[in-house]
Amino acid sequence: MLLGIDHVGIACRDIHGSMRRYRELFGLDVVRFEERPASGVLEAMLAVSPTALTTAVGGARDGHRVVSYVQLLQPLRDDTALGRFLHEHGEGIQHVGYAVADLASVVPELERRGARLVPDMPAHGILGSSIAFLEPSSAAGVLTELVEIDEHR
Amino acid sequence: MLLGIDHVGIACRDIHGSMRRYRELFGLDVVRFEERPASGVLEAMLAVSPTALTTAVGGARDGHRVVSYVQLLQPLRDDTALGRFLHEHGEGIQHVGYAVADLASVVPELERRGARLVPDMPAHGILGSSIAFLEPSSAAGVLTELVEIDEHR
Repeated sequence: MLLGIDHVGIACRDIHGSMRRYRELFGLDVVRFEERPASGVLEAMLAVSPTALTTAVGGARDGHRVVSYVQLLQPLRDDTALGRFLHEHGEGIQHVGYAVADLASVVPELERRGARLVPDMPAHGILGSSIAFLEPSSAAGVLTELVEIDEHR
Repeated sequence: MLLGIDHVGIACRDIHGSMRRYRELFGLDVVRFEERPASGVLEAMLAVSPTALTTAVGGARDGHRVVSYVQLLQPLRDDTALGRFLHEHGEGIQHVGYAVADLASVVPELERRGARLVPDMPAHGILGSSIAFLEPSSAAGVLTELVEIDEHR
């Protein structure tokens, strides 16, 4: 069901500072930067893997995920899930995203197994992905995102 | 420098319940379970990837990480880093681990770039890996582990 870890989502107060830090420290490149008003965030995707940029641009990956991302997130407003997370926990990892092949079949199956979806979340993420979030209470306390990647991203 | 996301480390109050949950929900298998007194934790590694078990047992992965793990952690005592995390934050993701090829060269390079190591941590992790932790203040608020995998694990 899960093809791999797609990304870790990290809550930041200063996304530009954090992007600089991850480049200086780990040499990670920003593959995409977007303001996403529907999600209430500024969002940057940093590719983690020697072949990440080529593969991300190149598309299909013969069934395996060899690309994973650090996703930096800064809230646009305090009254968002991410704004509340920062207020309560400070900076740190807010969620994990797993790659799935077919979100439309995975989500109902997970609901049959007792998982609950976070309501009113955008159905599409950055880089053309389709996404859904499971309530932390469904997954041992972890806000869990499922990501069907766009093979052409 | 970073070859991919090796694992997310998740703080649990009831590791056996969380293992059951991740198996029921996502079908994840426990590759290894250990009590690690030096780290003060019970630790379970759950393989995330269709080919994970074969590959984890089989060894070499021709330069690419196609296996990643969910690492469930339950503190053995309250007076540990993980015990304090659970007390302050509740259950959730405590850290992320990135795979590196050569920890002995990566760590001094990161220190030259201004990163600080968490002192007094075990040098070896589960599944025969060599590990080091960066202070959260070094990596945009995130407790960050570097993992040199044992190719024979």
